[in-house]
Amino acid sequence: MEIDFDKIKVIAFDADDTLWVNEPYFREAEHEVARLLSAYETENKINQELYRVEIANLKHYGYGVKAFILSMVELAVEISNQKVPAKVIDEILGIGKDMLQKPIELLDGVEEVLKELQGKYRLIVATKGDLLDQERKLEKSGLLKYFHHVEVMSDKKESDYVKIVNHLDIECEAFLMIGNSLKSDILPLVEIGASAIHIPYHTTWLHEQVNELECSKESYKTFKNIKELIAIAQ
Amino acid sequence: MEIDFDKIKVIAFDADDTLWVNEPYFREAEHEVARLLSAYETENKINQELYRVEIANLKHYGYGVKAFILSMVELAVEISNQKVPAKVIDEILGIGKDMLQKPIELLDGVEEVLKELQGKYRLIVATKGDLLDQERKLEKSGLLKYFHHVEVMSDKKESDYVKIVNHLDIECEAFLMIGNSLKSDILPLVEIGASAIHIPYHTTWLHEQVNELECSKESYKTFKNIKELIAIAQ
Repeated sequence: MEIDFDKIKVIAFDADDTLWVNEPYFREAEHEVARLLSAYETENKINQELYRVEIANLKHYGYGVKAFILSMVELAVEISNQKVPAKVIDEILGIGKDMLQKPIELLDGVEEVLKELQGKYRLIVATKGDLLDQERKLEKSGLLKYFHHVEVMSDKKESDYVKIVNHLDIECEAFLMIGNSLKSDILPLVEIGASAIHIPYHTTWLHEQVNELECSKESYKTFKNIKELIAIAQ
Repeated sequence: MEIDFDKIKVIAFDADDTLWVNEPYFREAEHEVARLLSAYETENKINQELYRVEIANLKHYGYGVKAFILSMVELAVEISNQKVPAKVIDEILGIGKDMLQKPIELLDGVEEVLKELQGKYRLIVATKGDLLDQERKLEKSGLLKYFHHVEVMSDKKESDYVKIVNHLDIECEAFLMIGNSLKSDILPLVEIGASAIHIPYHTTWLHEQVNELECSKESYKTFKNIKELIAIAQ
């Protein structure tokens, strides 16, 4: 599928694992919590159960680090049959606070691309997660100056994107989304008639994984590196 | 101070304790957690310590129910000298999930006022808290149809309001904010040259309380009931 850049007015970037490293910090935390709970279960079982608790809690807590901390605490209570010592709960809270203070590590080529596109398109960030956490990461990243504004979204379904496009007062075909999650950053955009570029990241949260067959490869582009955007968006 | 309604283009409503009941649910939860931890301290001491933990955590977690749950868990660990049983942690998580599922109880006159103002002004919601929770409450409230959009803010300082006004592409004097917190809904607006109407609610979180002297009574209006808005905004 060729993207007609003459029609694009707004380019929206996913943040986590598109602009900067994120998912590896969750993997680290999962590993850490499995270590803390190793008296009760194997790491494999703990990871599976944590995932189950997270998914069950999505409807209560939504996405982001705070939801993840609460799910880790809930898992600890559950998997220990309410035997887990308070000290372990304390350490889990510590893992969470550490996650909220991670430095921002930009992915290769990100700033170069934003510098190049700035002024030619209206650039925005469209991200899920905790409001404060995402705002803080953007601030720390030094990238804020390239973006018109930031949309922190409670979910990334078709209806959520339609809301953004309406709010921007543009047609869907003038909207291009760039991100690492086929499920959240690509498929809903294809469905609403917007454009999308998939830039896979080496780690994807299970919940974001979809069968590639769900979406015809014809309907979106895939890049290996965000820098490919420079050449085609001229 | 008289508000010149000919100049007002956007009226922003705070949500919690302005459109619907909220703070009493936090008071209930505090009472509940004090009961769970009564083996360790008096209710008075527990309330004080919870407040201290919440304020210390604002920089990590921001505002909202998830932050509050995490602070209750942290308090339980701390105040028990890491002796609190996992069962109590479980009950605290339950208190939190209950808070996220409370029904919405609209305050007197709210829908009447929105019906009346709709079409004459652009109405928005400007609220702090958890993104998903606030969106869900608005959805449950049945009020969504009156609002152009919802701004969930990570904080309500002058700079946060300036961002909204810029995003709306209006002058500060065209912006009127209505809310129950002098600190968050009134003072910052007066500072940036916007208008503000204070509608006190019978309970205010300690963190939102300010000395009334901090702000000249001349610079904003105070209503007893939101319905007073109908008469003056004609």
